[in-house]
Parts: sequence; C-alpha cells; structure tokens
Amino acid sequence: MSAERRTRDLDLEIPDFSQGSYAGTRDTWIRPWRVHRGVLYLEGHAPVRDGAVVHPGRLGRDVTLEQGREAARVAGLNVLAGVRAAVGSLDRVECLIRSLNFVVAAEDFYEVQQVADGMTDLLADVFGPEAGYGCRATIGVQSLVRNLCFETWVEFGLRDGTE
Amino acid sequence: MSAERRTRDLDLEIPDFSQGSYAGTRDTWIRPWRVHRGVLYLEGHAPVRDGAVVHPGRLGRDVTLEQGREAARVAGLNVLAGVRAAVGSLDRVECLIRSLNFVVAAEDFYEVQQVADGMTDLLADVFGPEAGYGCRATIGVQSLVRNLCFETWVEFGLRDGTE
Amino acid sequence: MSAERRTRDLDLEIPDFSQGSYAGTRDTWIRPWRVHRGVLYLEGHAPVRDGAVVHPGRLGRDVTLEQGREAARVAGLNVLAGVRAAVGSLDRVECLIRSLNFVVAAEDFYEVQQVADGMTDLLADVFGPEAGYGCRATIGVQSLVRNLCFETWVEFGLRDGTE
Repeated sequence: MSAERRTRDLDLEIPDFSQGSYAGTRDTWIRPWRVHRGVLYLEGHAPVRDGAVVHPGRLGRDVTLEQGREAARVAGLNVLAGVRAAVGSLDRVECLIRSLNFVVAAEDFYEVQQVADGMTDLLADVFGPEAGYGCRATIGVQSLVRNLCFETWVEFGLRDGTE
Repeated sequence: MSAERRTRDLDLEIPDFSQGSYAGTRDTWIRPWRVHRGVLYLEGHAPVRDGAVVHPGRLGRDVTLEQGREAARVAGLNVLAGVRAAVGSLDRVECLIRSLNFVVAAEDFYEVQQVADGMTDLLADVFGPEAGYGCRATIGVQSLVRNLCFETWVEFGLRDGTE
Repeated sequence: MSAERRTRDLDLEIPDFSQGSYAGTRDTWIRPWRVHRGVLYLEGHAPVRDGAVVHPGRLGRDVTLEQGREAARVAGLNVLAGVRAAVGSLDRVECLIRSLNFVVAAEDFYEVQQVADGMTDLLADVFGPEAGYGCRATIGVQSLVRNLCFETWVEFGLRDGTE
C-alpha cells in the first residue's frame, strides 16, 4: 500500500515545499529536516497555509477544540509536504516513530490530546495502521511563535537504504 | 546484573501492559512504543494507576513536591511496564538514553527537576549506575491531559540484535 | 574546516566540563550525555556561567529579547563544552541533528524563536552551514529549574566510527 497513492485517494491538498519550507524563506540558520542513520527528523511544523496562521490563539480561550484539531490537521499536511521535500516521496518512510505535540492552552484546558488527533489521525490515514501509528506526547504550553495554537515535532523511520 | 532481578529485589509493583497500555484501550491512532534501529521509543507515560490519575493538579498550587515526586515514580513504574510490553524483558535494555519530563507548574514553581527525580531515581535503581542514568530535561508546562501533574517521554537504547 | 579551529578564530570562551558539567556536581542520577548508535544526546543545557544563572526570569516580563538571546548564546557555549566533555573534540561531530528549545515566556510573548537564535546562530558559526544548521522547535514554557529563562535539549550526529 503506497502512502503517495493514499494521498491521492484521500484527495489531500499537500503544499509543495520543494522551493522552501511552509514558513517561507529561511531567515535564520535552521534546516527544515535532517536525515541521520535511517531517521528523518523534521523541524517544528505548524498550522500555516499560504503564509497565514490557521486559528491563532489559545485553546480553552480563543480557539475551540474543533478549530484546534483543524489547525493540527493543517500542520499534518505540512508534515507530509516536509517529508516529500526531505526524501522525495512519502513511500520512502518505513514508519512514524513519534511526535511531540505542543498546544497553546489555558491553564484549565486538558483536552490537548484531542487537538493533536487532528495531526496523528491524518498520518494514520496516509501511512496506514502499522506504519502510520506512532508514539505521542502532547503538552499544553504557554506560547508559540506567531501566536500559533499548535506545533508538532516529528521523527520518521526510513526504509533501509534511504539515507 | 539483571534489571528484571533488581525489580524483584526491590519488590516493585509493575503493572502488566501486555493486554494494552496503562491508559486503557487505545481510543485513537497512536502506539505505546516503537522500535527503530536499536532505539526503543515510548509514548508519553503518566502517573496513572488502575485507571486513576495519581495526584492530579498543579505543582506549587494543588500538588506538593512530595506528591509530585510520588506521581513521577508511578509514571516510572509504568515506563517499566511499557518496556516489558514492547520488548518482553527489561534485560533487553542496554541503556536509558534520555527522558524529557513535563511538570504542570505554577509560574513561580522552579523545583521541576526534584519532581522528575521520582522517575529517574527509579530507573537508576532498576538499571544500575551505568545503564540507568540518562540525559534529562524537565520543563514546567501549562497543562496535560486529564489534569495530570507529570508526564515523561523516554527513549532507551537496546542491546545489539534486539529489534 | 575544523569546528575546533573555528572556535579559536571566533575567540569563543568555552568552559571546561571535563571535571563535571556546568551545573556543578551531579546531585542526582542523571548523565550530562549519552552516545548510542552514532547519535550524541545531551541533557538540557542552560545559561549558567561560573555557577550563576544568566538573566533569570520570564521573557516578556523580566527579561528582554536581547537578554534572552544572550542567555541562549551562553547555553550554546555550554553545549559546545558538553560535546567536548562527551566525545573529546567538536571535530567528531558530523552534524547538528536538532534542538528543542524552551523559553520561559509571558503568555503574550511570541518571539520565542528569536531567543533561541542566540544558541543556534552560535552552533551555525562553529560547525558551518551544512553541519551546523539543525532542525529546531522552540516553545514558550511555564517555568524551568532555578528560574532559568532558557534551556536547550540537543542531539548531534557523530562521524562514522565515533561511538
């Protein structure tokens, strides 16, 4: 089962990061991805579409759970774009290893995992039940750049011979 | 020195996760663990015992340092259970690589590391001074799922041939 | 191009951690570093110089952006010291894989990345454009030990044969 084929079956709108990351031109010395010994690491990926932040603000105050989940899904689409930009094709991925997810949260907002579901459910759909389910931790944080409500930090295992 | 033997010497009550993780049945598409190229990654592990959250709340407000440390120790027992469920035996672990620890904290609560000690001291006891001491970072966060006061995100190195 | 040479060209003051980490004597069971299968993991490194915390407090309240960036740079110098203590020389590093950066932030402080630049720009200067640019995520958190304003959690890829 090809992940690339699945993105077509699901009719996903995945941006093209081959000319630079979703955040636009790099203005500082970081990289959107790194491959080392069979692991693909991505920088923090965020709910940004066409340069605009999707649902900025704080869960439990300005942003509803449904909006947060939608933002996380947009971040997930950017993760898929990031994987393609890094290794050429989603089909070079052996598995999602894990994701660490950040949700900007009011101090009494506890549904942080349901927000992150928007991202991890998408990856599960694309990569399937074995490869696409990863370990996860999700934490409510104080703030993120550009008033983002969500960000994800992901690593994938690559197929042998992919380095 | 066997880590499994040590758990018996220390008379530790480690739950059995072979029938599913401490958080009960998976209700979303995540995995409790992943092994890739000699590293065992665990999902976020939390102070939950028999389905109930141990010492929910915020350090520096609802939860004392001693309670926080106790909660972290319970999370550590769950980590041991998670390792067994993943690779069958604690003795397949070569070393604790590192832990990233989350403490739900009031904004003037700085003793986050002493909370995490409850978890890392346990792993040190079980795996011994070389294998059981890992790198650590511990941060005070805004909120966690289910009003948890602590969560840990851990990776272990596995012995050669264990994949 | 040697990273060790670059530290001399840049006239960097890198402390000597060979006799123990920047945080002084270990008072608990953690390690400042771990090498496993070609990856060097460091514990959280912080803006501490000669035992004193540099610019303690909260960004957006007690600590200015410029002070935060300076603190992050001090943490970066400690990271360089930590690499030397772990593997003997900066020249054994193949690449910066990634950094996860924690900034203690007021809830309306969003410039967390510009704080982290103080650390990542330093690593870019030392290791150069290919090896020294890594993936990054930076989050605003509630609190850190000792009222630190910044902490970084870093992993490096090591050259083949370095384990």
